[in-house]
Amino acid sequence: MSFLTVGTVAFDAIETPFDKVDKIIGGSATYITLAASYFYPKQQIVSVVGEDFPADMISKFKSKGIDVEGLQIKKGEKSFFWSGKYHNDMNSRDTLVTDLNVLADFDPIIPEAYKNAEYLMLGNIDPSLQNKVLDQMNQKPKLVMLDTMNFWMDIAMDNLKSVISRIDVLTINDAEARQLTGEYSLVRAARKIAEMGVKYLIIKKGEHGALLFNNENQVFFCPALPLEEVFDPTGAGDTFAGGLMGYLASTDDISFGNMKRGIIYGSAMASFCVQKFGPNRLLDLSQDEINSRIQTFINLVQVDITLS
Amino acid sequence: MSFLTVGTVAFDAIETPFDKVDKIIGGSATYITLAASYFYPKQQIVSVVGEDFPADMISKFKSKGIDVEGLQIKKGEKSFFWSGKYHNDMNSRDTLVTDLNVLADFDPIIPEAYKNAEYLMLGNIDPSLQNKVLDQMNQKPKLVMLDTMNFWMDIAMDNLKSVISRIDVLTINDAEARQLTGEYSLVRAARKIAEMGVKYLIIKKGEHGALLFNNENQVFFCPALPLEEVFDPTGAGDTFAGGLMGYLASTDDISFGNMKRGIIYGSAMASFCVQKFGPNRLLDLSQDEINSRIQTFINLVQVDITLS
Repeated sequence: MSFLTVGTVAFDAIETPFDKVDKIIGGSATYITLAASYFYPKQQIVSVVGEDFPADMISKFKSKGIDVEGLQIKKGEKSFFWSGKYHNDMNSRDTLVTDLNVLADFDPIIPEAYKNAEYLMLGNIDPSLQNKVLDQMNQKPKLVMLDTMNFWMDIAMDNLKSVISRIDVLTINDAEARQLTGEYSLVRAARKIAEMGVKYLIIKKGEHGALLFNNENQVFFCPALPLEEVFDPTGAGDTFAGGLMGYLASTDDISFGNMKRGIIYGSAMASFCVQKFGPNRLLDLSQDEINSRIQTFINLVQVDITLS
Repeated sequence: MSFLTVGTVAFDAIETPFDKVDKIIGGSATYITLAASYFYPKQQIVSVVGEDFPADMISKFKSKGIDVEGLQIKKGEKSFFWSGKYHNDMNSRDTLVTDLNVLADFDPIIPEAYKNAEYLMLGNIDPSLQNKVLDQMNQKPKLVMLDTMNFWMDIAMDNLKSVISRIDVLTINDAEARQLTGEYSLVRAARKIAEMGVKYLIIKKGEHGALLFNNENQVFFCPALPLEEVFDPTGAGDTFAGGLMGYLASTDDISFGNMKRGIIYGSAMASFCVQKFGPNRLLDLSQDEINSRIQTFINLVQVDITLS
């Protein structure tokens, strides 16, 4: 069994109504692999950083069981840098700076040892690169999950639809599901996305939870946990995806029932992520904390009804 | 046991992206009592209409077990009329016309026979009138639920806070909970509202479901059902409240566990309401349809997890 993540590893600068950081580790692959590491400790990563990327973070990846053979380090270049400022509601943000740096010419070369990965997570990057990753695999993985965003729908819809036709699980937010399909009803949007060849659609609604649709019109809803304080939402979606994929890879079960469990695990991990800046909260969680949080999610919707 | 609803009975004109109606029965008390009638068939209503209000609708109320002694019919006057137009997302709307008519001088006189009601639902009207209703009761009812809106927070916050201090259950939406407390975090807003004397706070989030908080920091989440088509959201919040209160009155149990069940019942009724214009869908539901819808809500969050 093997589990490969392709995505970004980067620096972020984040400003929220409560605080700010000028430079913190970020990137989709960072959040995905750290979250997944709590469930599946032997991961592979394909990404790119510059010479400025700290060696001790690479050591942390290794200590979490993440193989970094596929992490390209570009001498004399700088890592991808993103800076954003959250509005008072913490649900929306402005991007202040996007310095692509090494990401501008990123060529996701899959090491030979990774080409048989059975679980493949394609983080949010250019869909043509996501396609290129799939082209390099020796066979279709058991499960491919893809994350994307409205930006690619605006400028590369054809490429995006092409890669969507090759994957099993799509994670997007509600506005993106509507943009991708032209349907306002999420039930209809889900049906159209199933027709694109996707087996499972996960609609992430942030503080409003997540919906899972399969391609047989079944649906599952997982709430978000009402939190006293959301400190920094950056990376919550990637953390969700990482927790989910880590759980799926560790159980090696891609049934609808197990997807539902995985979504609870992913949601629990995302609820930790937002409680500190960047990925900090993901570095030192205990299994007890995770189990207790999952129990909180279960209790949140627990109701005893006997129908007459 | 008795269950009294005080609110509006009115005419609405509604325009959605799909269709429009020029004149349909509306008003908070209409939706509340019709929804509640499926669970608690002996209700009392206090409201006001004009001479233009159709006798056959009053007959329908009676046939649903609703006592209309407290429904004032003002000779030579016109019923309250509201007209609104929904935006494409169906989550927001513009009010086009508000003709108060009989509502301008509404004096909610509680008939003697109603003054011992054990369950009291105060629909969204001027908080000074809601206070006046409470003043007329012979003793504090077993459970008083109050619905209100941002409009009263804008122009009558003191009166609103005064009546809130006298009730048990408050239903508002997330923006209103934030406006009422000045807290963005719904967890903190819930704590502040508990300090106002409220035992249960229900935060209605429309298509994103509903949150129930008690005054001991317990929380329950009920999703909204993803629907293929939302035809007309008018009255969904009142229908939710009516289903909930009808269920509570019929079971005569105001524990947290029973509130949770009631919220599922209310959500199921609201999901029917939005599937036709106005209250039309609430006129002819069967118990089988309701049970099947409640089962759908239960299944929506059903997940099997054994924590290691």
